[in-house]
Amino acid sequence: MTTPDPLAVFRAHGGNLAAAAAFYGRPREQWLDLSTGINPRPYPIPPIPPEAWTRLPEPADLARLLEAARTGYAVGDAASVVAAPGTQSLIQWLPRLRRPGRVAVVGPTYGEHAAAWTRCGHTVADPVTLEHAEAAAADGSLDVAVVVNPNNPDGRRTDPDRLLHLAARLAARGGWLVLDEAFADVTPELSLCGRAGVPGLVILRSPGKFHGLAGLRLGFCITDAAVAAALTAALGPWAVSGPALTVGEAALADLEWAAATRLWLEEQAAALDEALTAAGLRVLGGTTLFRLAESDAAAAVFDRWCRAGVLVRPFAYAPTWLRVGLPGEGVGAERLLAKRV
Amino acid sequence: MTTPDPLAVFRAHGGNLAAAAAFYGRPREQWLDLSTGINPRPYPIPPIPPEAWTRLPEPADLARLLEAARTGYAVGDAASVVAAPGTQSLIQWLPRLRRPGRVAVVGPTYGEHAAAWTRCGHTVADPVTLEHAEAAAADGSLDVAVVVNPNNPDGRRTDPDRLLHLAARLAARGGWLVLDEAFADVTPELSLCGRAGVPGLVILRSPGKFHGLAGLRLGFCITDAAVAAALTAALGPWAVSGPALTVGEAALADLEWAAATRLWLEEQAAALDEALTAAGLRVLGGTTLFRLAESDAAAAVFDRWCRAGVLVRPFAYAPTWLRVGLPGEGVGAERLLAKRV
Repeated sequence: MTTPDPLAVFRAHGGNLAAAAAFYGRPREQWLDLSTGINPRPYPIPPIPPEAWTRLPEPADLARLLEAARTGYAVGDAASVVAAPGTQSLIQWLPRLRRPGRVAVVGPTYGEHAAAWTRCGHTVADPVTLEHAEAAAADGSLDVAVVVNPNNPDGRRTDPDRLLHLAARLAARGGWLVLDEAFADVTPELSLCGRAGVPGLVILRSPGKFHGLAGLRLGFCITDAAVAAALTAALGPWAVSGPALTVGEAALADLEWAAATRLWLEEQAAALDEALTAAGLRVLGGTTLFRLAESDAAAAVFDRWCRAGVLVRPFAYAPTWLRVGLPGEGVGAERLLAKRV
Repeated sequence: MTTPDPLAVFRAHGGNLAAAAAFYGRPREQWLDLSTGINPRPYPIPPIPPEAWTRLPEPADLARLLEAARTGYAVGDAASVVAAPGTQSLIQWLPRLRRPGRVAVVGPTYGEHAAAWTRCGHTVADPVTLEHAEAAAADGSLDVAVVVNPNNPDGRRTDPDRLLHLAARLAARGGWLVLDEAFADVTPELSLCGRAGVPGLVILRSPGKFHGLAGLRLGFCITDAAVAAALTAALGPWAVSGPALTVGEAALADLEWAAATRLWLEEQAAALDEALTAAGLRVLGGTTLFRLAESDAAAAVFDRWCRAGVLVRPFAYAPTWLRVGLPGEGVGAERLLAKRV
């Protein structure tokens, strides 16, 4: 008989503060939630016109949002852009737009990719190395590869030229490279948005992490015309809410905020690394939106921090890892240090 | 050679004010948009906590919304409730959850039902009479019936007992009755939400029309456990935005507002009927959220009202019909009368 894992709920996804509050008996307003990779200094919410709540979003509103996404993600003219109520909704739909086939998820990475492809009857290898996916694409035994770049939770960076080559290999037999760039805002040099539009390259972006707007439920697919048309038909009309159109347009067009935020996140990530090291953990990597730290005593560290009201993210597949989000100014490094293990 | 229909864009859906503004060269703020069935006195937007925008919605937030939906729609204990980013997203997903089969859409009605089932490879009869659907269900030649009750655009009401019988007939062979109750808030006696949970009855509700919150993108499926589980898996986690959780919970739990609004809508609909009649149109029916009027000169009336800045809804399949939404107090009946044809 195995003991049930009391932390299983925290290992499935970050951000479940209500579960943490219940489990540890600490009111949720007394928690510091570092269990996600969401920017703690979010894009300021602009005024929402009353019509955004009450009217059906119009094609012209959507067109303005898509134009802002082209600006914010430096999308090339050859690419099509599709907006959705969160990247997750795109992850749910993509496996339905192909006949069941062979899928490789380069990982370990964000768990919803493999789950969605598996649920739709595809044969999923998860996790595999990039080299494995490349070899399978080369010998024609792979239909879809999924790569997150930079990767979550370890921050691994993949050369974009190499990914473009992989996409071309897959596309030659009608396959796709699904490239999740959820954290690429902080490493724009890694993004393939500027070169999108080639067949079979399916890029996912969102303001959920870098712009700190996870509750908005807004995501984008930057891809070729055929995939864009299939996704648009699948999502149907009015897929994105009025408030998301308003806020998303403002956030994505604001390149000045983005540049300043990248610098601020770099400072914050450096400070967090110092705090983690001082607390006795080894920093393995990450992006400037989250850090991955290692400790042989990770389960005990997780538990001790929770008892002090700091929630981080443990992983079922890597019991020595903890992913730690940025605390933001004035609350973070000090509080982690104070809970030194 | 046929002349292109200049009004085609207005005949596809209501609410495209930007297209009307461009077509008629009148700034959009100078239009009175009566082209939808959306309550012009919407539920007041409560304060949105900053977390609703920035954090991923948590299971507890969703649970509170679903509880409010059970209250607002008087859902029976046997039924399961699933929340989605708009009823339209449910309409998009439902046809994917079944093998291609034989579908009958009782109509004429809201066009997206037939479009979605057709797109997924089902064989769709549209429009059919209720009697036709009942006969096909009885002889086993039908898998799915779609009924909108009360119906849009003509307001036709169908006896709920009769629909429950149809659902049972279809369910006996694994089929569904998809029952779109988008406008049932104003005729709660027609709703089957209180008796939902029986196999194969798939009810759609939303605060888009009655609560006047179409931009929120929030919809519900009230159904049996199996359909609910399939939809929940299809939609994936965090399907509903943080603001929609906040606003939806407040709106659906507010039974006092709902009762007062039903009365107000009745007064408004009566005043609109008077104005339409005085303007020389024949009122065919509708609900208290919209009226359907007829005129042999409907195209000319549509055009003349547009030139005066009043947008209503024409129909490709019924050239003598115009659907007219409620103008709200102080702007409406007078303005329609002033544009007497």
